[in-house]
Amino acid sequence: MPGPAEPSLAERRALLRQALAIVSGSRRLIRGKIARGFSTKTKADESLVTDADLAAERFLRRELSRRFPDHGIIGEEFAPANAGSDFLWTIDPIDGTLSFARGIPLYGTILALHHRGRPVLGVIDHPSLGECYSAARGLGAALNGRRIRLQDLGPGEKVEREVVATGDRMHFLKCGRARDFDRLMRRHPQVRSYADCFGHTLAARGAVGAMVDFGIRLWDMAASQVLIEEAGGRYACLLSPPPGDLGQGFYGIVCGKPAVVDWLLPLFGRTKR
Amino acid sequence: MPGPAEPSLAERRALLRQALAIVSGSRRLIRGKIARGFSTKTKADESLVTDADLAAERFLRRELSRRFPDHGIIGEEFAPANAGSDFLWTIDPIDGTLSFARGIPLYGTILALHHRGRPVLGVIDHPSLGECYSAARGLGAALNGRRIRLQDLGPGEKVEREVVATGDRMHFLKCGRARDFDRLMRRHPQVRSYADCFGHTLAARGAVGAMVDFGIRLWDMAASQVLIEEAGGRYACLLSPPPGDLGQGFYGIVCGKPAVVDWLLPLFGRTKR
Repeated sequence: MPGPAEPSLAERRALLRQALAIVSGSRRLIRGKIARGFSTKTKADESLVTDADLAAERFLRRELSRRFPDHGIIGEEFAPANAGSDFLWTIDPIDGTLSFARGIPLYGTILALHHRGRPVLGVIDHPSLGECYSAARGLGAALNGRRIRLQDLGPGEKVEREVVATGDRMHFLKCGRARDFDRLMRRHPQVRSYADCFGHTLAARGAVGAMVDFGIRLWDMAASQVLIEEAGGRYACLLSPPPGDLGQGFYGIVCGKPAVVDWLLPLFGRTKR
Repeated sequence: MPGPAEPSLAERRALLRQALAIVSGSRRLIRGKIARGFSTKTKADESLVTDADLAAERFLRRELSRRFPDHGIIGEEFAPANAGSDFLWTIDPIDGTLSFARGIPLYGTILALHHRGRPVLGVIDHPSLGECYSAARGLGAALNGRRIRLQDLGPGEKVEREVVATGDRMHFLKCGRARDFDRLMRRHPQVRSYADCFGHTLAARGAVGAMVDFGIRLWDMAASQVLIEEAGGRYACLLSPPPGDLGQGFYGIVCGKPAVVDWLLPLFGRTKR
């Protein structure tokens, strides 16, 4: 029996509207936690989790299940639900918990929807910055509802003048790519770590030339392809686990302005398109 | 003839009040530039300058000269004035112009006052974050007027779990310290670039364990010693130009939680205190 068909443009628009409504709720919840205080614990893998992470994921799951009872949900903090569904939501309630726990405003909530592995929509919300990035396939990308479109380098513009953002070196190390990180640092003069989804949204609006992120999980990057491509950028996945990954495997991606992504790909063993 | 005596506690309090009033004016000016738009140029040294940098420095100089006609002023964008004075103000109107020009909210205005080379007060304002850090010697450090006091590591807490912030590698390279940067990246698992004064204020409130910044100028670091020390942190200057520097030479500093600074110093060829 075939599953549900790919959503139409009108359906994608409606799904995005719902996703944005849900994320405005998680933003309120997270801001409330900041105002009232939250507790922090260290997980088995030595990463941090706060009760704001848990409460936000519970909220997002509850809202998604209520609105889309047939859809699957994968999230960072709880077990997958209905993961065999054609429609699969991924949740990172607080990407950048280390930042969040220290009061650094550069964390974000990531929500994405895929249909049979193909991205339908993606939302990255930065509650403390008041910036919500969203995109759905064929509908463009937006920041707080206003269309964003990133500008590729012009003829005279040099890749060396663009900032290349990266995730933390320790994440490259985790998936055996520390050497790639070190090579990038030597080859490009303007590499800055903009950890977590903040680097992805900087790339989506062209504030940096590109973002290079390795050693991340499904929910860390699930929104980025549609966000970057709908903004007019280029997205390349350079490392991915075998099909069927539900958050166990590591990904590596490069995304941003086409000319900068093309310059970066050979450093990571890929030829330009 | 001896110059004016070192300012008393009451005088330092009054000077700080005036500095904060002046910076609230530059904040308004900078926010106005963001709202109305600004132009960007590349300077001879390939760094960026916007008309917001120039307008903010002009504003700060005008306010300082009006209130303190005998004091000297050194700033990033214009020539020194009255630089032989016992009281010397340093200005970086927009530290992190690259961020500012790209709409990344992590730039800041830095204003500091020294008396015969000894810090009297320091202010770092982040207009887009709405965060103003300030300190005067003997009067503590504050964020938006509320006292901040950074907590050193407790007995069971590991330096490896603390984030070590750095400036851009290209600045280390400029002063021949790229090797120190690379060594730090290999030795500590949680190094992140938090470029410009944003890394300094993160260190002042203990959001990161320490900030390591090399290849910076006088006005980039002039506020940091008093801010960090008054917050209860440790500050070490590891590289400085000959006395009498008016902004030509490079500095290198490490500052933050005492235990983290002590851990870092040997990596840069210094023994612990």
